[in-house]
Amino acid sequence: MTLKNIMLTPGPTPLPPSVLEAMSRPLIHHRTAEFGRMFTSVIEDMRFVYRTKGTVLMMTTSGTGAMESAVVNLLSPSDLTIVCTTGAFGDRFVKIHKAFGLNPLVLPFEWGSSVNPEALGVTLKRNKGVKAVFLQHTDTSTGVVNDIQTLSKIVHEESDALVVVDSVSGLAAERLETDAWALDCVVTGSQKGLMNAPGLGFAALSEKAWKVVETARLPKFNFDYQLIRKSLADKETPWTPAISIVAGQAAALKLLRAEGMEACWKRHDALAAHARKLLTEKLGLPFYAKNPANILTGVVLPAGVDGSKLLADILREEGISIAGGQLHLKGKIFRLAHMGYITKSDIDAGVDALARRLVGAKA
Amino acid sequence: MTLKNIMLTPGPTPLPPSVLEAMSRPLIHHRTAEFGRMFTSVIEDMRFVYRTKGTVLMMTTSGTGAMESAVVNLLSPSDLTIVCTTGAFGDRFVKIHKAFGLNPLVLPFEWGSSVNPEALGVTLKRNKGVKAVFLQHTDTSTGVVNDIQTLSKIVHEESDALVVVDSVSGLAAERLETDAWALDCVVTGSQKGLMNAPGLGFAALSEKAWKVVETARLPKFNFDYQLIRKSLADKETPWTPAISIVAGQAAALKLLRAEGMEACWKRHDALAAHARKLLTEKLGLPFYAKNPANILTGVVLPAGVDGSKLLADILREEGISIAGGQLHLKGKIFRLAHMGYITKSDIDAGVDALARRLVGAKA
Repeated sequence: MTLKNIMLTPGPTPLPPSVLEAMSRPLIHHRTAEFGRMFTSVIEDMRFVYRTKGTVLMMTTSGTGAMESAVVNLLSPSDLTIVCTTGAFGDRFVKIHKAFGLNPLVLPFEWGSSVNPEALGVTLKRNKGVKAVFLQHTDTSTGVVNDIQTLSKIVHEESDALVVVDSVSGLAAERLETDAWALDCVVTGSQKGLMNAPGLGFAALSEKAWKVVETARLPKFNFDYQLIRKSLADKETPWTPAISIVAGQAAALKLLRAEGMEACWKRHDALAAHARKLLTEKLGLPFYAKNPANILTGVVLPAGVDGSKLLADILREEGISIAGGQLHLKGKIFRLAHMGYITKSDIDAGVDALARRLVGAKA
Repeated sequence: MTLKNIMLTPGPTPLPPSVLEAMSRPLIHHRTAEFGRMFTSVIEDMRFVYRTKGTVLMMTTSGTGAMESAVVNLLSPSDLTIVCTTGAFGDRFVKIHKAFGLNPLVLPFEWGSSVNPEALGVTLKRNKGVKAVFLQHTDTSTGVVNDIQTLSKIVHEESDALVVVDSVSGLAAERLETDAWALDCVVTGSQKGLMNAPGLGFAALSEKAWKVVETARLPKFNFDYQLIRKSLADKETPWTPAISIVAGQAAALKLLRAEGMEACWKRHDALAAHARKLLTEKLGLPFYAKNPANILTGVVLPAGVDGSKLLADILREEGISIAGGQLHLKGKIFRLAHMGYITKSDIDAGVDALARRLVGAKA
């Protein structure tokens, strides 16, 4: 009963007190001027976070829903696309394509590696008429960061394709410059660097992307960007939004506005460096990712250690949530997050719990 | 600053204190036993509310998203369906069909009327091979209730079609017996009779519906019922859920469980009767719906009264939210809700504010 729940998971991440307070307020109706002001502040502040002067749309959904929204709004049947995969979330983009009848060209990279810009360039040279290239900014399943600036440059040099970025876990944790890097569509979710509860998805769109949206023919209704943009002009959403989570997002974005994006990225640089230094000193185990992101550190467990049991024990006995590996990495790695409202003291507690048990396991 | 915000709107509806408290708690991770217990309680309690022994699925979305989920999971290209429309939400089912390339047979009824069972019977006799009939339980745009029990009986007598019911605004306000009335798919949202914040959609499915889901070919991923059912077996959702709103829903459902469904429906009967008696006494204006639901009362404003201004004035000066008419009824009617956590004292305050101003407007 005396355990404090410490979340070191890469989404959801812990919520600042002002976000919890905002979600506990009585609801306001979503077709009122008061909601319109709150919603407008969220959209404006999201443009600040995205570093864009373009349109930002909000949807009531998960990060996966936001990813689907990009596919169904940007593509038509038989469109050729490239999906670069570095883990579970690139694979999810492929599954979404297939669910909607598209057969993308998949450019796979080994788990733990990031997308090789040269390989993408060669693939674009060999395949003409590609409509869009799908990328992860950071891959939550492996903890790698992709060099989106370079990859976007290559796409625009080699093709007319749209650059579509899943920054569900990356936004507000790693530098991302939507306009300066010429990104056409960047989707994200509320529950990671944005320091809010899960339930909202966002999409930032370039002018070039809008032209494609206007003629794209994959079916959609709930996620129809054109309907959402039309309502945005009236400071509304077409369907009833998750009002409480919008209130939480408004509060969280006030914190990011006050901090500024450069400072926010520096905070994540410092937190990731602190976590890795501590993990090296206390555990001395190999890191999983070759090009590690600021969002989390994946650590390879010694052979013979049951990672699933280890993390379950830590959660049950110490109230600390740390994520394990996904799919074939289940039980073999742990993923310690350091993004959003996670603090140095949270990381210290987590690494301490791991060190005590891993020393015990070795003994 | 001293105004208390009183919501008399038909979704969102006011939240009980225990729901606000639940949403203000620190997040728990959604892949833990603790979340699994909370999620399981929501699903079990939803089965209690739906009056079903069948499967109930949860999605992070609006009521519109829940409606779309039924269309894309139950239908295949070129399927023939009937959509009965009595207002804006039947029209929405039609739009969703068209967005996914289907051309439903639309059986329209005048706004303010409910679905005529004989007309549906005749339509089913004349059109063989109908795959599904889409109905509103209550129509939020007009305040009518449809006789779902009778309509379902006719569908099953005349055809093999599935009975698909939008009970986004009706569930937990009007009697609905999913199993006893042989309803195949009933969708709803969290923000009306369920007394929670908006952000969750639910679907209850019959065994017959599941057989159809397994072969339905319209494209879907985020709303894929089979993926959602698979995760349900592990007490999870396939994508990160709106954890805070799940916590709110668990708290709200505890209240409904304690009350019991018969008592809940009686409470709504009494509240609707109270509202109509008071509206008759204080305003003496005609009601809009011919077969009024317990969810709200639509009242026709005198010619010359600007309904939009009236309601905006009441909200700004008295903090009371009352909904106006939608589409061609904008400014011509108001819709006073009496469902969910709305109480007698809320209604008294709302009718009082209307009476004072309408007497003023007439003078």
